[in-house]
Amino acid sequence: MTSESTRPLILVTNDDGITAPGIRNLVESIVDLGDVVVVAPDSHQSGMGHAITISNILRMSPHDFGMPGVQAYKTTGTPVDCVKLAIYKILDRKPDVLVSGINHGSNASINVIYSGTMSAAVEGALEGIPSVGFSLCDFAEDADFSASRNVARTVTQKVLKHGTPTGTCLNVNIPKVAPEKLQGIKVCRQGAGHWADSFEEREAPGGRTYYWMTGNFTDVDKGEDTDEWALKHGYVSVVPVQYDMTAHHAMTELNQWDLNGER
Amino acid sequence: MTSESTRPLILVTNDDGITAPGIRNLVESIVDLGDVVVVAPDSHQSGMGHAITISNILRMSPHDFGMPGVQAYKTTGTPVDCVKLAIYKILDRKPDVLVSGINHGSNASINVIYSGTMSAAVEGALEGIPSVGFSLCDFAEDADFSASRNVARTVTQKVLKHGTPTGTCLNVNIPKVAPEKLQGIKVCRQGAGHWADSFEEREAPGGRTYYWMTGNFTDVDKGEDTDEWALKHGYVSVVPVQYDMTAHHAMTELNQWDLNGER
Repeated sequence: MTSESTRPLILVTNDDGITAPGIRNLVESIVDLGDVVVVAPDSHQSGMGHAITISNILRMSPHDFGMPGVQAYKTTGTPVDCVKLAIYKILDRKPDVLVSGINHGSNASINVIYSGTMSAAVEGALEGIPSVGFSLCDFAEDADFSASRNVARTVTQKVLKHGTPTGTCLNVNIPKVAPEKLQGIKVCRQGAGHWADSFEEREAPGGRTYYWMTGNFTDVDKGEDTDEWALKHGYVSVVPVQYDMTAHHAMTELNQWDLNGER
Repeated sequence: MTSESTRPLILVTNDDGITAPGIRNLVESIVDLGDVVVVAPDSHQSGMGHAITISNILRMSPHDFGMPGVQAYKTTGTPVDCVKLAIYKILDRKPDVLVSGINHGSNASINVIYSGTMSAAVEGALEGIPSVGFSLCDFAEDADFSASRNVARTVTQKVLKHGTPTGTCLNVNIPKVAPEKLQGIKVCRQGAGHWADSFEEREAPGGRTYYWMTGNFTDVDKGEDTDEWALKHGYVSVVPVQYDMTAHHAMTELNQWDLNGER
């Protein structure tokens, strides 16, 4: 993509696929803030985490997003593949901001780690691009994105102005409430939680067994400074997410193990 | 799986697939330390990150690992799926340790984030299981695992004794050197780095374009306390990895943005 524009370059992606209502709402909410390029999966890629396609081929083609001035490409890849394709194949300058979403469903607490939406934002951040993932706590295809649109616009404007703190991207989750019921925006930490999974066993025509994964999210964190707390109390949660996964506080403990000495 | 055993229960997985030499070497190095159950992908799942299978079905079946006393299952899922299947479907008690690998290729620095091997260990950790991922810095199918075997045994024994620091798993990388050339084991932080990718364009029979992702790892970290430094100097690197991705230090900066006030 060749461009002489001096307007901010905004890269948009998601994990629900390029035809999802969430990405359309995201683009509509920020389209006047700069030059918008969409590079998104051609199909649903939820739960893909930070997966990349290294054992198979990728395809990519222009896509008519149906919005004047918006360039769009769909790819067969994961959300992280989309970010890499955008940076290293499609764009001729570095985006000023990357926005991912708006995801259909929460990416708060431990969900950040499974989320293709957030992994795309993490990938942008480690490429040095101020990056944000937006998620609405509503899985419905016809979810009401009006509050999310306001939030996406506000946060994108802030990020265009301030950048993001070094080594981070932002995980923004919006509760399922009407715009006038929103309590505000809260900076939070990632709440502790995990999924208690179960595997529903079924029989295919022919008799072979297969499984569907289902699960219940278990919130084990009683803190009032978490994203889960904020969302339950009507606030938008903003968590700064880092890709340095080192547990620096644990290094001292490990050094006491005498790893090079007696077993 | 029903067991009356009081020996430690050792869950083994990987991302190179259940028939990879790396997982065989791992099992051989620790098989006498407890009851070993292998649950691993039936095919290559490198670069799958923390992907889970929620939009498709899973299959799972017993697998003859060819080693007395070792129970094994292969699945169509990702490494993280394997851990979930093991915990919530196959095992009737919580593993005392989860070991993942031995991966064919480095998972040091930012590779931790793309790695199925390490994502399996992270998933184990967030289920409360002391978990370790092992990777040998050698992609070759016929790589020499003898140094890695010693390391895997030592670290697994230490983890059975001490557990892991709260909220962490261990990312253990082994340099490509002969056992007698190993300089020792070093506790490190994750080095800063990223992949400069390129997309090789090819034409399929019929004329349609497709792409292969390739990349060069770019080490931008000059520190001598990183995993990359340790590996380059002949040491085994051990990085404690946490799944709380909150950049706690960045919360103050974000709170100064006045997210609820003027745009």
